[in-house]
Amino acid sequence: QLMSKQIFEITVFPGDGIGIEITPACLALIQAAIDKVGGLKLNFTSFEAGANYYQQHGVALPEQAMEHAKNSDATLLACMGMPSIRYPDGREIAPQLELRETLDLFAGVRPVKTLPGIPLPLEDARGKQLDFVLIRESTEGLFASRESFSINGSGSEEFATDTQKISRKGCERLFEFAFSLAKQRKGLGYKGEVTCVDKANVLGSFYYMRQIFDEVAANHPSLAASHIYVDAAALQLVRQPWQFDVMVTENMFGDILSDLGAGLMGGMGMAPSADIGERHAVFQPCHGSAPDIIGQGKANPTAMFMSAAMMLNWLGLQHQNSAIQQAGRFIDKAIELAYASGEILPYELGGSDGTEAITNKVFSSL
Amino acid sequence: QLMSKQIFEITVFPGDGIGIEITPACLALIQAAIDKVGGLKLNFTSFEAGANYYQQHGVALPEQAMEHAKNSDATLLACMGMPSIRYPDGREIAPQLELRETLDLFAGVRPVKTLPGIPLPLEDARGKQLDFVLIRESTEGLFASRESFSINGSGSEEFATDTQKISRKGCERLFEFAFSLAKQRKGLGYKGEVTCVDKANVLGSFYYMRQIFDEVAANHPSLAASHIYVDAAALQLVRQPWQFDVMVTENMFGDILSDLGAGLMGGMGMAPSADIGERHAVFQPCHGSAPDIIGQGKANPTAMFMSAAMMLNWLGLQHQNSAIQQAGRFIDKAIELAYASGEILPYELGGSDGTEAITNKVFSSL
Ligand SMILES: CC(C)[C@H](C(=O)O)[C@@H](O)C(=O)O
Ligand SMILES: CC(C)[C@H](C(=O)O)[C@@H](O)C(=O)O
Repeated sequence: QLMSKQIFEITVFPGDGIGIEITPACLALIQAAIDKVGGLKLNFTSFEAGANYYQQHGVALPEQAMEHAKNSDATLLACMGMPSIRYPDGREIAPQLELRETLDLFAGVRPVKTLPGIPLPLEDARGKQLDFVLIRESTEGLFASRESFSINGSGSEEFATDTQKISRKGCERLFEFAFSLAKQRKGLGYKGEVTCVDKANVLGSFYYMRQIFDEVAANHPSLAASHIYVDAAALQLVRQPWQFDVMVTENMFGDILSDLGAGLMGGMGMAPSADIGERHAVFQPCHGSAPDIIGQGKANPTAMFMSAAMMLNWLGLQHQNSAIQQAGRFIDKAIELAYASGEILPYELGGSDGTEAITNKVFSSL
Repeated sequence: QLMSKQIFEITVFPGDGIGIEITPACLALIQAAIDKVGGLKLNFTSFEAGANYYQQHGVALPEQAMEHAKNSDATLLACMGMPSIRYPDGREIAPQLELRETLDLFAGVRPVKTLPGIPLPLEDARGKQLDFVLIRESTEGLFASRESFSINGSGSEEFATDTQKISRKGCERLFEFAFSLAKQRKGLGYKGEVTCVDKANVLGSFYYMRQIFDEVAANHPSLAASHIYVDAAALQLVRQPWQFDVMVTENMFGDILSDLGAGLMGGMGMAPSADIGERHAVFQPCHGSAPDIIGQGKANPTAMFMSAAMMLNWLGLQHQNSAIQQAGRFIDKAIELAYASGEILPYELGGSDGTEAITNKVFSSL
């Protein structure tokens, strides 16, 4: 038997704003977790990219960084973009979208898993113990129109269009991913159900998507498959989100519903994400660069820590290396213990703990 | 001075499923409210339309009914559609969409106003007293693609598209409507703020929409104007929905966010809506035909009652007739008193009251 891979190349993008503040803490935490396991080495190579980089160099993500990402084992990204810095056409600088498309990271994995000790919005006790996953298609859908929208007609007849694209290939791989995740989860005691979120009652492209979902579902008879319209899904996520196991949807819908899910977890500071393709994956917190709190030490590093744990877990699955998965579990456990202690509460949730205090508490819980 | 109009022609669509069960109660309630005011006459003309009608006649909404709606003062619709009855291309029967488009009802008004005595999902006390309005554009956006989507390519390269259309004219009238509603509300003590919900950071058509919003906002300097990205809006609607006054957005986004709003009010059974154009308007509860509870007496008529109150209020504003507005206020007040009594709770909210019990309690509170 071959020895499993022990050295991993990680591309790192601290990005903009608070990204610069939370990245060092996150890299140190990863290092501590793999040291605890032993026998592993992660080489981190950091690149500048994002809105500030664009302002200085006229490109948002240097080609060399993209190449490095392509050839590395995984990418860890903090946050990119600044509302005040934009492309000439008005769009914000968001090279994380280019990464998703260029590296073909079709499965945007957005876990909705609540932590103890965090104030959560829903009153029902079941809303304090959520544990489901939303999968957002991340290479097509309405976002595919990003650079090709057009303005037509003129004067009072003028209109702008954007075109949503949903492909057979994009759907097949997305749904296979969702069912395989549901299967893994079923092994861990979850329900084993995939729910396709669409608007098949009104729009042809979603009816198309739903049909492909049904085809893929038929290949997984041991798992449950269900449909829900996107409007009903938004309502159910407020009323009974505990009913879901694995949800899967189009890019734009996934963007909306995953932020709703982040709200259920206590906000963007607590929401990790992964964008996963066949060979590569990018891990990043859901939050942005938070220009309003830059330099104040208030940035919450938790979502980036959780994203790092997802990265270690994914590397372990990808390379059949249970040691690196173990390091990921150590980080998850440390975060959970840190919050369960009741000793820390992030600023944005009404507490008075910022990057340093949260980092210290998580470290001491490792 | 001319005497204001006293006789109003109302087109009624009981529609499908539970629509048939709640419509008689709703018409009787309207009659009782206008009797209480005195001096008014509403002529109701009912038409069959919807999924069952389509199954029998091959058309979802007869031309004659559309003509009647066009020429009447307002339309009251219960619910239409049945998951099991579809057009050949797979879409559900939803002639309410044709009504919106044919009658050019561009402003979908979806109030999010909570009632006492109803179990609500948010823990925060402010979440029990919500009172804001979401305006959904209802004639274009992604929905405009409804009958013109296409499948392109073939085999593994096959893909489906739908095209979102956002027009200058559609935006201008929509935003004017939103600001004029905010102005009215400001007069009643609300904040006087319009929030445009878009995805201008990524999609050109939304950046286009936002620019027109800013132009229209500049014409209303006494009102506040703000922007929020749709994903952040979904999050804020879960975390701090009380921050909003008037929200305005594209058709598809509005469909999603208004159901989220309905969730905050206790579900579809408590959520009214109006689709308003220059000359005509359609009023209908947000819920569907609920095939699972047909014939059991469990249907909750509250949202249709609230929609009827919105109709009377709109007729009053449109025709400068304060008497008919008063009738609308009577209905609203009766609903509020009925629920505040704590004596009724609809089935879908864990209670044991259906159409009859709720109707009786509202009548006795009139
Ligand atoms: C920053 C933005 C372009 C991005 C998106 O819309 O995908 C973000 O909202 C996300 O969810 O990752
Ligand atoms: C029934 C359906 C076509 C409709 C819509 O999507 O507009 C409904 O969800 C609504 O919100 O009025």
